[in-house]
Amino acid sequence: MESGAFCSLPQPPRPGAPVLRAHRMGIDTYQEAVLYLRRDSPVCQSEGFAAQSRIEVWRGEVRIIATLNVVEAPLLEEDQAGLSEAAWRALGVAENTPLALQHLSPIQSFSHVRQKLFGAALSDAQMQEVICDVAAGNYSDLEVACFVAAVAGQRASVEETTALTRAMVAVGRRLTWPSTPIVDKHCVGGLPGNRTTLIVTPILAACGLTIPKTSSRAITSPAGTADTMETLAPVALDIEQMRKVVEKEGGCVIWGGAVSLSPADDILIRVERPLGLDSDSQLVASVLSKKIAAGSTHVLIDIPLGPSAKVRSQRAADHLSHMLCSVGQALGLHMRTVISDGASPVGIGIGPALEAHDVLAVLQNAQHAPQDLRMRALTLAAHLLEMGGKAAPGAGLALARSCLESGQAWRKFVAICEAQGGMRTPPRAPFVATLHAQQRGRVRVVNNLELARLAKLAGAPQAPAAGLRFLTALGAQLEEGQPWLEIHAQTQGQLDYAMTYARTRQEFLTLEDCDV
Amino acid sequence: MESGAFCSLPQPPRPGAPVLRAHRMGIDTYQEAVLYLRRDSPVCQSEGFAAQSRIEVWRGEVRIIATLNVVEAPLLEEDQAGLSEAAWRALGVAENTPLALQHLSPIQSFSHVRQKLFGAALSDAQMQEVICDVAAGNYSDLEVACFVAAVAGQRASVEETTALTRAMVAVGRRLTWPSTPIVDKHCVGGLPGNRTTLIVTPILAACGLTIPKTSSRAITSPAGTADTMETLAPVALDIEQMRKVVEKEGGCVIWGGAVSLSPADDILIRVERPLGLDSDSQLVASVLSKKIAAGSTHVLIDIPLGPSAKVRSQRAADHLSHMLCSVGQALGLHMRTVISDGASPVGIGIGPALEAHDVLAVLQNAQHAPQDLRMRALTLAAHLLEMGGKAAPGAGLALARSCLESGQAWRKFVAICEAQGGMRTPPRAPFVATLHAQQRGRVRVVNNLELARLAKLAGAPQAPAAGLRFLTALGAQLEEGQPWLEIHAQTQGQLDYAMTYARTRQEFLTLEDCDV
Repeated sequence: MESGAFCSLPQPPRPGAPVLRAHRMGIDTYQEAVLYLRRDSPVCQSEGFAAQSRIEVWRGEVRIIATLNVVEAPLLEEDQAGLSEAAWRALGVAENTPLALQHLSPIQSFSHVRQKLFGAALSDAQMQEVICDVAAGNYSDLEVACFVAAVAGQRASVEETTALTRAMVAVGRRLTWPSTPIVDKHCVGGLPGNRTTLIVTPILAACGLTIPKTSSRAITSPAGTADTMETLAPVALDIEQMRKVVEKEGGCVIWGGAVSLSPADDILIRVERPLGLDSDSQLVASVLSKKIAAGSTHVLIDIPLGPSAKVRSQRAADHLSHMLCSVGQALGLHMRTVISDGASPVGIGIGPALEAHDVLAVLQNAQHAPQDLRMRALTLAAHLLEMGGKAAPGAGLALARSCLESGQAWRKFVAICEAQGGMRTPPRAPFVATLHAQQRGRVRVVNNLELARLAKLAGAPQAPAAGLRFLTALGAQLEEGQPWLEIHAQTQGQLDYAMTYARTRQEFLTLEDCDV
Repeated sequence: MESGAFCSLPQPPRPGAPVLRAHRMGIDTYQEAVLYLRRDSPVCQSEGFAAQSRIEVWRGEVRIIATLNVVEAPLLEEDQAGLSEAAWRALGVAENTPLALQHLSPIQSFSHVRQKLFGAALSDAQMQEVICDVAAGNYSDLEVACFVAAVAGQRASVEETTALTRAMVAVGRRLTWPSTPIVDKHCVGGLPGNRTTLIVTPILAACGLTIPKTSSRAITSPAGTADTMETLAPVALDIEQMRKVVEKEGGCVIWGGAVSLSPADDILIRVERPLGLDSDSQLVASVLSKKIAAGSTHVLIDIPLGPSAKVRSQRAADHLSHMLCSVGQALGLHMRTVISDGASPVGIGIGPALEAHDVLAVLQNAQHAPQDLRMRALTLAAHLLEMGGKAAPGAGLALARSCLESGQAWRKFVAICEAQGGMRTPPRAPFVATLHAQQRGRVRVVNNLELARLAKLAGAPQAPAAGLRFLTALGAQLEEGQPWLEIHAQTQGQLDYAMTYARTRQEFLTLEDCDV
């Protein structure tokens, strides 16, 4: 299928469309493109533009869609078109560049989203049209939110999820590699600190497999793998840089967004993030579209299962596993899933830099290295060594362990970091507070969700040094007054904010009496 | 139930929260409150505020929630808090008023919306919490869009819709009247030009019934009843003004938004409008919450059924009718529904002022008055005269007709307009273009949706004179070259825009050959 075959091409501005001079407003609206026009400008009058209108802004043949804010006289001249930072960057203009403006034509594909909300299924072709328009930036954030909601929960079938995945691959680039297998892994998340990728990747690469790993930044969690890796090495590599790293070292750990393997996904995530919303079908489409785009042939998915993990019941785990395998196989991948223990955080740190310190301890075979993180990584590496033909069935674990213990994996990790642009030391936060146990007892339940929320309130992942250090463990005994959690923050305001929240909540740990 | 009993109270700013000076930016972001801060201000640094953060802005005990845009040096001083027009109005501040800022606490009730998206039902208490937060402005537009999507289609049960309706009544004001019955009518829409309210209301009031009619502006259509009425008289009356009109004349036709009978609904509609999205459950909750808040006891709902009306199948009409009656009765209303012919537009005009001209013709018993509009209004008036005890079963139609033909209804309408602030003449658009039939044939199908879209592209309802005049009718014969549609617009740009659209679409009418 031709990439973009289903995308409707934008119609260039009609003859006589108004032309104004670009002006950089110096207003940062995050990723939203905003256009500012004077209320009394002839353009607002004659074109019927009003606040919140969706407007096409053209520089020659380059087009963006912006939301209109109407401004009063002193901020702009009548013939100026003010641009937010995002709009300025996207158009690539200079001060006074002429810009043509016109109303956005109705987005036909949004009627498919409406139909889906009202209960109809989306066909392959309809899904392609929607995703093309999403990737082209034709949808407003509100419209994207509706699409996200329309396929949330279990509302998208395997067929629709396959169509969504295929559509997301079609609007991005797709890498090819000289030989197969190309292996890859992914963890569906929800388990703070579960940063196995940074250990699995060097083990596999050291054992001769090819693993061009792209990772995401956090959606609803306090750290994504890309956020953690970024505290150790640059991750915003482009495709050519990524290819060089993989050709040299056999593996990489980079941020998927920078290589735009799934540009539609980046837009969906931008909306899902503030809503704290990600669903099975989008998770499957997001993960698998990137694996396929990266050229992977053998994919292992880790599904942590626990009362406050993302996946909370065996049934939900089975559903997700089934959907991953069905969609993956329909699109030609060799799939395997592992349902793992998701009862409590992995390692000690929660937050980009704090997790990176755990990873370093494991790779360096330090005595204080978190054993849970180490064992999870070895288990996943073992599966992939067997799937990729480097170890006989049952022999993967021994090979993975020897690779780690011999220092091979550590040396490979350093080499990958260097190839990605230079290894660096994860930062430490300037503001730290400690929580102490209010009573003694044994830790019976750990609420991952509440811990993740607290880490985010402390500033993770935007502040890479922010987060938590979890000083106890499931099953451990706490004495009254014993420190069990550190909160790390980059600013006093964020530390106060997180501490205020922590003091009003008793739900991080459930303790049970223990008679010793 | 205490109004607001389920609403979580906002926590005042913590001691030491930063205080800045208010500054009016002169930027109109429509209804979205936006806060502008300097990127290099100590507040952004110490509080960890970043673009798109949701921030509580306090003036004394008045609080709004605003979205942050980060600006560069020349636009603001370091100690200024810039406000968009909507934020400025909502806070009621003056230049340099001190404002306290803090991060928005997490909105607990949004977890209910997430659960609903993932398939769980919402309880009464959960629905109350959500609607309280919506009405308080605590949800971002994206979050509101998710809620709207979560209860779209047939995803909300009768119980949930009853809970939604009750919650919407609870967060608004509720009117009481000295005596009953209080009658009311509503049309679920989707039928361009179906402006019966402006005829039914004066008939009922002239016959001695009390009808405190509040109407909405258009959501997805080119004109709402309030938009049409506004071309004839002021409609933005407050509750005391409304009460005076009704006490004097027995009826009114005002805009519901101005009396805030359902403040939550106004916010939901603000998001539904750009998405072109309204669903059974929200429609029921929106309509009935306003009827209950207005103190109505007897409610008649007109459901036009046709291939391109809002309701397109007998099954859908039955579903909606059932939901309206179930929810209405659960909340103590006497309900009746009428499923009417929705095959083609009613009257000649489509758009606020153009529809008003049709209404005037009927009320004035003009010879050219559209007979379809007249008969529909008489039928509905007849039902309500019987429901309200002014006519015996079967005798309503004769009473309604005599009231209209005698001029009583017209005199009452003029009196109502005068009581609302003075009658006025609907405007005429300065730019008009005519479409001619490309071939001869009999009009077999009229696509209401496409006509409505075209009227909107021409500028309706924002430009009250904009819209269409539909010069033919279902079943009529067209000769080649015969004019069948006029497009009216307030600006040349909008006329061009609508004409461009009209030329690319052949789907307004379906003609069949006719051998005469």
